Amino acid sequence: MPLFTSNAVSNAQIFPSSFPSRRSLTSTPPTLLLLQPTPTRSSAHNRFPLSNPLYSSNPLTALLPSPSSASSLPMPPHATPSVRSSLIEPDGGALVELVVPEAERAARRAEASLLPAVRIGPVDLEWVHVVSEGWASPLRGFMREAEYLQSLHFNSLRLADGSVVNMSLPIVLAIRDEDKEAIGTAPDVALIGPSGDFVAILRRIEIYKHNKEERIARTWGTTAPGLPYVEELITPAGNWLIGGDLEVLEPIKYNDGLDHYRLSPRELRKQFDKREADAVFAFQLRNPVHNGHALLMNDTRKRLLDMGYKNPILLLHPLGGFIKADDVPLDVRMEQHSKVLEDGVLDPETTIVAIFPSPMHYAGPTEVQWHAKARLNAGANFYIVGRDPAGMGHPTEKRDLYDPDHGKKVLGMAPGLEKLNILPFKVAAYDTVAKKMSFFDPSRTQDFLFISGTKMRTYAKTGENPPDGFMCPSGWKVLVNYYQSIQSEEVGKETASAVSSKS
Amino acid sequence: MPLFTSNAVSNAQIFPSSFPSRRSLTSTPPTLLLLQPTPTRSSAHNRFPLSNPLYSSNPLTALLPSPSSASSLPMPPHATPSVRSSLIEPDGGALVELVVPEAERAARRAEASLLPAVRIGPVDLEWVHVVSEGWASPLRGFMREAEYLQSLHFNSLRLADGSVVNMSLPIVLAIRDEDKEAIGTAPDVALIGPSGDFVAILRRIEIYKHNKEERIARTWGTTAPGLPYVEELITPAGNWLIGGDLEVLEPIKYNDGLDHYRLSPRELRKQFDKREADAVFAFQLRNPVHNGHALLMNDTRKRLLDMGYKNPILLLHPLGGFIKADDVPLDVRMEQHSKVLEDGVLDPETTIVAIFPSPMHYAGPTEVQWHAKARLNAGANFYIVGRDPAGMGHPTEKRDLYDPDHGKKVLGMAPGLEKLNILPFKVAAYDTVAKKMSFFDPSRTQDFLFISGTKMRTYAKTGENPPDGFMCPSGWKVLVNYYQSIQSEEVGKETASAVSSKS
Repeated sequence: MPLFTSNAVSNAQIFPSSFPSRRSLTSTPPTLLLLQPTPTRSSAHNRFPLSNPLYSSNPLTALLPSPSSASSLPMPPHATPSVRSSLIEPDGGALVELVVPEAERAARRAEASLLPAVRIGPVDLEWVHVVSEGWASPLRGFMREAEYLQSLHFNSLRLADGSVVNMSLPIVLAIRDEDKEAIGTAPDVALIGPSGDFVAILRRIEIYKHNKEERIARTWGTTAPGLPYVEELITPAGNWLIGGDLEVLEPIKYNDGLDHYRLSPRELRKQFDKREADAVFAFQLRNPVHNGHALLMNDTRKRLLDMGYKNPILLLHPLGGFIKADDVPLDVRMEQHSKVLEDGVLDPETTIVAIFPSPMHYAGPTEVQWHAKARLNAGANFYIVGRDPAGMGHPTEKRDLYDPDHGKKVLGMAPGLEKLNILPFKVAAYDTVAKKMSFFDPSRTQDFLFISGTKMRTYAKTGENPPDGFMCPSGWKVLVNYYQSIQSEEVGKETASAVSSKS
Repeated sequence: MPLFTSNAVSNAQIFPSSFPSRRSLTSTPPTLLLLQPTPTRSSAHNRFPLSNPLYSSNPLTALLPSPSSASSLPMPPHATPSVRSSLIEPDGGALVELVVPEAERAARRAEASLLPAVRIGPVDLEWVHVVSEGWASPLRGFMREAEYLQSLHFNSLRLADGSVVNMSLPIVLAIRDEDKEAIGTAPDVALIGPSGDFVAILRRIEIYKHNKEERIARTWGTTAPGLPYVEELITPAGNWLIGGDLEVLEPIKYNDGLDHYRLSPRELRKQFDKREADAVFAFQLRNPVHNGHALLMNDTRKRLLDMGYKNPILLLHPLGGFIKADDVPLDVRMEQHSKVLEDGVLDPETTIVAIFPSPMHYAGPTEVQWHAKARLNAGANFYIVGRDPAGMGHPTEKRDLYDPDHGKKVLGMAPGLEKLNILPFKVAAYDTVAKKMSFFDPSRTQDFLFISGTKMRTYAKTGENPPDGFMCPSGWKVLVNYYQSIQSEEVGKETASAVSSKS
């Protein structure tokens, strides 16, 4: 018998047959939550009425300021010292929120203009956003070396009280030799965003070496050329990292028509409490939702109800930050998700759709921990994990970069995530007999069709329909339109280039 | 102020000026140990009488069986269930010992001959040795996948009771496709050593993929070609790893005239208790001892005495397993260490010299944790760490592979090592004014001479003497003899090759 037990492995063995894990029963006894029944919902349905289109009528959007009134958020971030929900505590005990209160912004901005300044890129700004809202609680800024080393070596941070929180990705800010030179011995610096505005002050800074090779090797488990985040954001970056505490001058907004989907952990926790959720299960995704995903989410909900939870809420939580070039852009995905909800594949009444503002590393088992930890901070107490989370193909070899099972195994072992209920799931595939997405049954392999991202793209580009039941038709149409638009763009570019080479 | 505190960093800041660390005072109050004074030792000396040659008269050797009577060890490993010392508990609470009791060996050997067999190499055998004596407690064999993944991602293992022990290096056994095929579904396999003898049974095995690239990247933080352990032992190894519980058929011996130096953790703990040590400080090394090392060890002892410890014992603990080709071989180092003790540079009365049987990874901050954890299991409650522990030059770039300060920093942050007192030290260098090794003083940089391993080798090869006070003359002579012997071997080979190319 193995000496060491890990929750992940035992989960993997018992899921989904004897769901839930021991942890879920002990850490969140549903009987202790005296909830009113939710009147609009029947108790055991897997398919939902089609009457409520969601994209425009997401109950959340009504509660939120319009993008133009972003600065008049109803809850100033510093108004209350901490946000707690009944379901799960943020790491470190209190949600970190780093946006300067409105009354102090003018003074801080004036101060920033006198400090040495560092210009940051769009993805750095995404990290400022992430940290400022407390997704990385209790982290209060870009990592100093002590945090960086712990993240790199242990995927976790030890707090001053001796407790441990998960922190698998280094959240760091690279600067160049010239920046370091210009900063000199100043204790604080101003950060200037891509648009030229002051974004934040970084306090009590520490500058240390950016050993890119080591960072890449320990984060990705490979140094092969072609890792998207590495090629675009690490290789060209400076040779120094600058850590410090962030004071963010105002809430980060993108003005892309999607800011109302960018709910902060505080806002999400408020929603869960408002809806009287007694369980929140988060689903991280960076791809369009197909019926295999929906099967998994609906099955999770059914099982939570079977366990005695009265009002489990799904957090459908697409990643909104940096993605690789061939992933589907955020706006297209949001439209696709909206269609999936309009179509009733997921129940709008028990689903909250919001954008997770983090950039994507494609770092597999290392990154899935970050994805789970951030959702824990946002109040989710269950996290769904499938095959090969945050994985991709090996950039230079014909294989998956990560063992597809390592993500769920590592997640269940990860220090600091003990309080989160990990829900590992079997893979879903297209069942050619049932003509729908089903959990893969190894006893009849021949009946199943695995539709990869590449395959899906090929369908959409050529206008060929995927098998019936793979995705709701309105969601599929969104993808077809997208791929055909980029195809005609490409053709347009080629034509233009042919013309210009002639002239 | 940084949010996260780490003992290592605070140690690094306070050492050696305000030695000892907070931990050392709280975890081992010396006043609680009512020890008799050690009559042969004066209280504040840094240089010792020259009268006691140690290599032949090491007080330990008298207690040990001669190599030829190795099988009649006075303490059968299974005789008592656990070994504890008053200073520090082994990881997991009890020392793991995996050598089959003598009475059962014949039966186990007979069983082994009927099992599928895997042939292991000399370094695999070193790992069998290490694990069998409990250096890696509570690990009971080669890692199964759940242990491997925790080691790789978190440098630690979570035990069934939720506690965490450090385990930074994967201790794994690679097998080939043919081995896997031959094993089939058998639950147990026999391991055959390099000499063709049955060495151990591996029980309740688990076979899983050996992703070499990921293992290397996450362990070394680089995949650059030229890492000695990788090139010699991982790249040529099989594509599968086999984990399981070890039953070792008899104590591992090398019959190289040095087995009497190979004290197990149980034997070392017994020695520390017998000597009534109230502090044991371990010094890991794989190089000859120069006076800079000695300064550091003697200074540590002095400081421990100043703190109120009455009988601090130094464990001088050279690594005995696999080393890279240009390191000094074990037998030469043991002779050199012996001269250093004969010469009185270290005090034989308060020093135990023993061999640490582990192979060397040269994996810097990752490996130094293993070096410390293993000594903790052997009963040391203080661990000395200097500049760039377990480091080497980058195999393809002109720089240190690791930041020289990361080792001590990471060690002080490492999960599972909280109970060990980490003693980070400033670097010692040759002080050309004082004409001896001194702690480097950055205010008079120009007075110091750093004598690298390469420089030392050049001195020894050319017969040039290093500066006075760098190393005791008798120890230096051992090195000169060694380097001149390999040089004449090389010349001999070149001559032979020149002759043969002529013929």
